[in-house]
Amino acid sequence: MRIALGIQYDGAAFCGWQSQPHGKTVQDELERALREFACVPLQTVVAGRTDTGVHGLGQVVHFDTGLDRTPFSWVRGTNAFLPHTVAVQWAQPMPEAFHARFSAFERTYYYVLYVNAVRSPMLAGRAGWIHTPLDVDAMREAAAYLIGEHDFSAFRSSECQSKTPVKHLYQIDIRPQGDFIHFRFRANAFLHHMVRNLMGCLVAVGRGRYPVSWMAEVLAGLDRTKAAPTFMPDGLYLAQVGYPDEFLVPAPHTASVPWSAIWSDDSNIAA
Amino acid sequence: MRIALGIQYDGAAFCGWQSQPHGKTVQDELERALREFACVPLQTVVAGRTDTGVHGLGQVVHFDTGLDRTPFSWVRGTNAFLPHTVAVQWAQPMPEAFHARFSAFERTYYYVLYVNAVRSPMLAGRAGWIHTPLDVDAMREAAAYLIGEHDFSAFRSSECQSKTPVKHLYQIDIRPQGDFIHFRFRANAFLHHMVRNLMGCLVAVGRGRYPVSWMAEVLAGLDRTKAAPTFMPDGLYLAQVGYPDEFLVPAPHTASVPWSAIWSDDSNIAA
Repeated sequence: MRIALGIQYDGAAFCGWQSQPHGKTVQDELERALREFACVPLQTVVAGRTDTGVHGLGQVVHFDTGLDRTPFSWVRGTNAFLPHTVAVQWAQPMPEAFHARFSAFERTYYYVLYVNAVRSPMLAGRAGWIHTPLDVDAMREAAAYLIGEHDFSAFRSSECQSKTPVKHLYQIDIRPQGDFIHFRFRANAFLHHMVRNLMGCLVAVGRGRYPVSWMAEVLAGLDRTKAAPTFMPDGLYLAQVGYPDEFLVPAPHTASVPWSAIWSDDSNIAA
Repeated sequence: MRIALGIQYDGAAFCGWQSQPHGKTVQDELERALREFACVPLQTVVAGRTDTGVHGLGQVVHFDTGLDRTPFSWVRGTNAFLPHTVAVQWAQPMPEAFHARFSAFERTYYYVLYVNAVRSPMLAGRAGWIHTPLDVDAMREAAAYLIGEHDFSAFRSSECQSKTPVKHLYQIDIRPQGDFIHFRFRANAFLHHMVRNLMGCLVAVGRGRYPVSWMAEVLAGLDRTKAAPTFMPDGLYLAQVGYPDEFLVPAPHTASVPWSAIWSDDSNIAA
């Protein structure tokens, strides 16, 4: 039987998703907890491997098992063995055709940026911080150059394992609210560090260091060294993974992150 | 010259406010940073000593110094030596008559409670959690018994150093919003563990374990052992300290805590 799980985690507590011999990763903790609950090893396949410091709101995994448990027993039983920094949100039996990674046609990331002269301790590890105001209109104009199917080599980390640098970026939505600027990125898939590299360039334009048209030059140049530095991971959230409706994948429960409410008037993302 | 500072901190990172030989406390970090910035030891007096795990949004301290620095230089200079879990928000010269503790006539605490069958990793250490729905009307009725000047011995920890158990509780405001219930407590001062003990009893009534009138019995009994267990500190925030207007103490900058917006329609507390 194939089971899918919805997972949330505080990325600041982990060395990213993917299991590592030396590091404490989300996958390591999840598979250890599943083994303790199920009393057999269970290997998980994940929708999107997130980096150190990147949070999961709508992460999805699947695994195969012969065990017959109710969905909520997978949730409660696994959570009993997980640290407080990671939790299973839902569990659902799936047809064999479902694959957490290959069935996904879309990934959505949020970036939460705090704009204030003084940093906030309650936002450390939860939001990016910049102490100077940003020109939101300029960032929106620069973002428009990025939408569509492009070779995103200029925004790709040297450690990226993707087979192709060509991705389809559907949307970059930028909404200021109080001391925050909220960003939402939607694409079929993202390269390693791609959102953080896009953020670095958007912030550089927002600060007026480069003109809006510079973004088009960076994109066309395909050269990572011409782009801005990789922005801090603190405000980055894997918000949702999109699957075909036939799989009836539950919407991520993002109410626990208060600032996700800014997207709640948008039917693309469950609030 | 007397200087007042507004301080914010993530209480989950500290063993409370007050300096301790064995523990990492906010006061220890703040005085170490002030010493590094000012190159002389500076002793601080705090408005409210918070416990392990309790957050500071509107904490206030004062100290005396012969150094002549601009207010923002105290902010930026001290923050450069503080860990990311604590930050000075503002600095202001004060008359000798100002005393961070004795000039304060009111303290306001928030308690943020997450109500959901499944816990949230992003709220660990930031909000209390309860997995069963609560009866908000019953909690409001029970809270009404507590308002006024009372001997709060039933809600006082055995470690409390207050000279008197008599405090004046001005307001308990309870507002549900989505998966959260927000509590606001205002009093002239609080006993040690008082808000957490009040929360324990309110939640016990909200779950239907006791009738509304039980709160009046607990209050009148003056016996800590008859009250509910102390509730978890995770969702507790020292939101604001009230001083006479003549001191022109800046309002705390609570915008960095998104859920403080629920109180923003109320002119008593700056949003």
